[in-house]
This record gives sequence, C-alpha cells and structure tokens, in this order.
Amino acid sequence: MKGEIRQDITTGTWVIFAPGRGERPSDFPGGEPSSTRAADYDPDCPFCPGNEDQIPPILAETPSGDGPGWQTRVIPNKYPILSPDGGGRGRSEGFFPRLPNRGRHEIIIESPRHNLDLDQMDLPDLARVLETWRDRCRAIRSETPKLVPVIFRNRGPGAGTSLLHPHTQLIAAAVPPPRLIRREETARTYYQQRRSCLYCDLLAAEEAETSRTLPAGEGLAAFIPFAASGPFETWIIPRGHRPDFADTGSEEILRLAGTLREILLRLKRILGVFSYNLVLSPPFPSPDSRPFSHWHLRILPRLTTAAGFEFETGIPVNPNLPEEDAGRLRRGES
Amino acid sequence: MKGEIRQDITTGTWVIFAPGRGERPSDFPGGEPSSTRAADYDPDCPFCPGNEDQIPPILAETPSGDGPGWQTRVIPNKYPILSPDGGGRGRSEGFFPRLPNRGRHEIIIESPRHNLDLDQMDLPDLARVLETWRDRCRAIRSETPKLVPVIFRNRGPGAGTSLLHPHTQLIAAAVPPPRLIRREETARTYYQQRRSCLYCDLLAAEEAETSRTLPAGEGLAAFIPFAASGPFETWIIPRGHRPDFADTGSEEILRLAGTLREILLRLKRILGVFSYNLVLSPPFPSPDSRPFSHWHLRILPRLTTAAGFEFETGIPVNPNLPEEDAGRLRRGES
Repeated sequence: MKGEIRQDITTGTWVIFAPGRGERPSDFPGGEPSSTRAADYDPDCPFCPGNEDQIPPILAETPSGDGPGWQTRVIPNKYPILSPDGGGRGRSEGFFPRLPNRGRHEIIIESPRHNLDLDQMDLPDLARVLETWRDRCRAIRSETPKLVPVIFRNRGPGAGTSLLHPHTQLIAAAVPPPRLIRREETARTYYQQRRSCLYCDLLAAEEAETSRTLPAGEGLAAFIPFAASGPFETWIIPRGHRPDFADTGSEEILRLAGTLREILLRLKRILGVFSYNLVLSPPFPSPDSRPFSHWHLRILPRLTTAAGFEFETGIPVNPNLPEEDAGRLRRGES
Repeated sequence: MKGEIRQDITTGTWVIFAPGRGERPSDFPGGEPSSTRAADYDPDCPFCPGNEDQIPPILAETPSGDGPGWQTRVIPNKYPILSPDGGGRGRSEGFFPRLPNRGRHEIIIESPRHNLDLDQMDLPDLARVLETWRDRCRAIRSETPKLVPVIFRNRGPGAGTSLLHPHTQLIAAAVPPPRLIRREETARTYYQQRRSCLYCDLLAAEEAETSRTLPAGEGLAAFIPFAASGPFETWIIPRGHRPDFADTGSEEILRLAGTLREILLRLKRILGVFSYNLVLSPPFPSPDSRPFSHWHLRILPRLTTAAGFEFETGIPVNPNLPEEDAGRLRRGES
C-alpha cells in the first residue's frame, strides 16, 4: 500500500491518500446520465428560451455573439436558500442561536441551449460566461458590500444540481463561511510572517516540483494540488499576484476560458461525462486582505461519495495520487 | 419563504435552512436500490459465510444467539485507508508536509446474512452489533492508546458504501481530525466557563423545548437537533452524563438497540429504503476530557447532495425544518 497523509497548507487540513481503495469490489456500480443525450431545447425547462413566465424577472443579460438574442442571463433563484428581504425570526436564545436568512441567491444561465456543457462552448461564449461572473461580482459588491459572495457551478447530479440546463450560481451570505475564513486566516498569518503571498509561493513550489503541473495559457498556471481533496481536483491560478477576480480583463478571461476548456476536455477523455463542481475563490477580497488574496478557479470532480468517516472527522479520503492524476491529464489519456 | 440560519452550538457552524428548496423541479429524480431485494447469501460477497478465503484473518468473533455459528466478525479492511505498518514516506518539506498513513482500518461484519439491515435485526442481535463496537473500542484503546478511533456505518450507495452486506467500520488515525477537535474544544471551553457538560445542558434544553424530541428508551433521549445539518439528522444520547461508550453496560446497550431500531423503522416508513451514515461520537474521551465528553449516536440520512456552495463555505444547507421532521417521525407518518 503506497498511501500517505498530506497536509493542505492553504487550510491546514490533512488528507488521507489511499490508492488501493479504487480496487475495492462494489455492489453499486456508478453511472452518469449523459447530458449530450438531451435535446437542444426542453419545453419544460425554466431556463430555456420561451419559458420566461416560469422564472423571476431577469436582472441582467448579455447578447449572443452570433446574431440576435441573448447568451447569458442573470435571474434571482426561484428556490433561494437566502433572500434579500431575509425572512426568519433571528432571535438568539441560549442554546438555539438563529439569524434571518438574509442574502442573495442568483442564477447565471450560461446559454439558451439546454444541453450545452462548458467544454462544448466556443471560446468567446465560454469567456462571456466568465465575464458575467466577473460583472456580477462587481454588481453585488457595489449593491451589498457587506455580503460575502460565492460563485460556484454544479454540473451533473453527482455534484448536487437539479437542472441540466447550463448555469452557475451566486450566493452572497451575511454569515461567516468557516472554510473561507480559515483560508483567509491561513494566508494572512503566512503574509504576516513572510511578507509574501501564500498562493504566489505555493504556485512557485508546485511549478518547481513539476510532477503535478498541467498545461495552461499565458499568464496562468494549472496543477493538481499536492493535497487534493479528491480525484483530479484541479486548480487554475494566475501566475502574477491577482487579488481580485473583479479586476480581470477580457484578454485574461479569454485565456482562462481556453485553459478551463482544455482541462475539462482532457478530464472528459479520461472520465467520460462526469459530475463536477467549479468554484471561484476567494471571490471577494476585502481591502486589507489584498496583499494575500489570490483568486483561483478549482475544478472538483465528484467521483467519490463522502462517508461517515469524512463527515465525522473532516478528513478527506482521496483514492487517487495527484502525481498519477496529473500524469494522465498531461498525456491526455483516454 | 420561512427559512432561517441556525448555529450548531456544539461546533459553532451556521446551517442554512431553506424549506422551499424541496419544491425545486429536477431533471435527475433520485432512486435507492432496495437491499431487501437482494438474496440472503451472495456467493461473490467477501463477507458471506464460506468466502473466508477472500478476507484477511479474523480478529474477533461473537457467537450467534440462535445456535451454532457466528453473528459478528471483526476483520482488517482489505482495502484500508490506513495501515498498522504505516507506508508512505512521511517527509515534511516546506509546502508539502506529509506523514506515513499509519493507523487501523477494521470492518465489523454484523451478520452472516447478506441482505439484513440493522432495522430488520432482532433486538438481541442488534445489541450484539453495538456490543461489538464497544468491545472493539476497548481493544483498540488498550492496543494502540495514541490513535483516535472513529466508529461509523455507511448504509447504501448514497452514504458511500461499496458493499451491501451489513457492516460497520472502525478507523483509528494518528492525525488530528479537525471536526472532532473542534467539538472537543467547544465542549472544553463551555465546561471551563460553567463547570457543566455542554451535552447534558443541550439535552435538557432540547427536552424543555419539546418540538424536536422523539420517543426513546429508559435512560436515553432522542431528538432532531436544532441546527441539524441535513434532513432527519437524529441524535440518540444518554440522559445521564456518560463520557465513554466503552463503559456502556449490556442493559443500556439493549435499550440503545431498541431506540435505534425504532427510529430507523420510523425513518423507513417516511423515506422508504434510504442511505444513511451512523456515527458514534466521541468514541474515545481522554482522561482529562471526561467531564465534558458525552457519547451520542447520530443517524445522518443522505437525502441531499452537497454542492459547490457547501464545499467552498463549509455551511450546510438543510431543505427541511427539524421541527417538521420531528413531528413526522413522532406521528410515525408513512
């Protein structure tokens, strides 16, 4: 058994690597519904064109690159987990502290086409999706500067999505997100000790090590992190110190789109159609955290199911070694 | 929208309650393979009698209550995430700290019968399973006192199990589990401030509140916690201050078995066959933590899929209100 335990220095979390686990017998062979089998248009889909009566009023829209019509649309989530008016009682009583569920929960519809995955988009269209993320970050920041927005995308049922139509979500909460705080505090401490950005230095260390790096566009780096929390977790991160995704220019976004699409395509060649989460972090540095904030995009394929051990301990178990995952991705193995 | 945000005072974690989420449309209707359809015996199952050549040497066994043969068996996991000899290099280098994967990973086979769920067992048999947990705790403690053992059970593919045959797992790790530490530190701080056990006081507060309590056997309490991290999360906890599950007597375990089976049966009437994790915490108080350690058994039905938001923030989203879940369980609704 060639496993080991590795620490993610951006969080302090230990991750158990157990490469032999993949050989276990299983009574429950998995399977992934392929979105490519779905039609271009679904008359029952609330995000498809023509079904605007099923969605809340549109907040923003970008035009399509090829002709009339829209490409991306921003709408409030019809089934929000947080809402601007903040229902709930918010009484704090002894053992039972509570807060109103104030916040925002928006959907970014990424295409009028029902069955289009990010990896199937033309680069300008994929770039337009990422620009919509950026523009929405800016809008939320100016409208509700005290909320902490999180941008994420759930692709496939294994990643927690309920709708196939391609979309990203933006949730801006008033409660402190413990993992974001932990990452920020880790980077802050590192900065106070060394006057250097943890992510700049980590990126340099990953590139010096070389065994986990992946091809990326100009000004960007991509790698499977040393302590990846699951199989094929991949980071895309700017090479220079870039605190704030909201400042990203159009050319940089086009290169990001190219790198993202290339990695998604390589993953698909290895994994087939797969469920994944896409997370942009940190979405929103405060002015004092700019010296140690460094945005990055994480692709988190959902190939394993967290079990009782992970729930109880908070220790992820990864059956794949990052060096082997990176090697397969570099070779573009199918 | 009647949602709100609640804090779990045993961890400090905020949980978002979003009752409207259950009404979302879905392109991916879920389904659960029913274990009741499987046969009593599977010739390919490594845990079925007669297939002992497929498993590592047996560590312990308890006899069956009805006649010759065994009921529970303890074996090393053939595909362990940690191993006693601790492979791995364990060099700590700058950005890439690592440790050998030293520890133990055992399986407790709960019955010779391939298709028997806990809720289908006779009470003495279910009690024998829980006694095996206790006895294994004692054995691990005396053999490897520095490891932190975690006892958990994954039922169904949605809970991360790969094998149908009923079994519990025990993992004893040398790395600090962040969630266990956080819970212990929270209880320690509470004790230092009030000279009282957080869990004793929380239990009293839940019973005074009444809206989330469930029927339980003598000396035990059961409830859906105020800040349940998911639908129908249920706690079973001794009424008196009981720091250590290893000290539990046979009569108490029989009552625990009765309460556990009754709750699982009620859950099944509402949910059908469902995936769940069962976790015993804390499994192992140190001598100095006995005043504020209080064992409890948690049933965690896996009815939702964590998505990008939960991954990134560490904030669970629960689409059910605990009071409503508890009401349904009390009424025994089908």
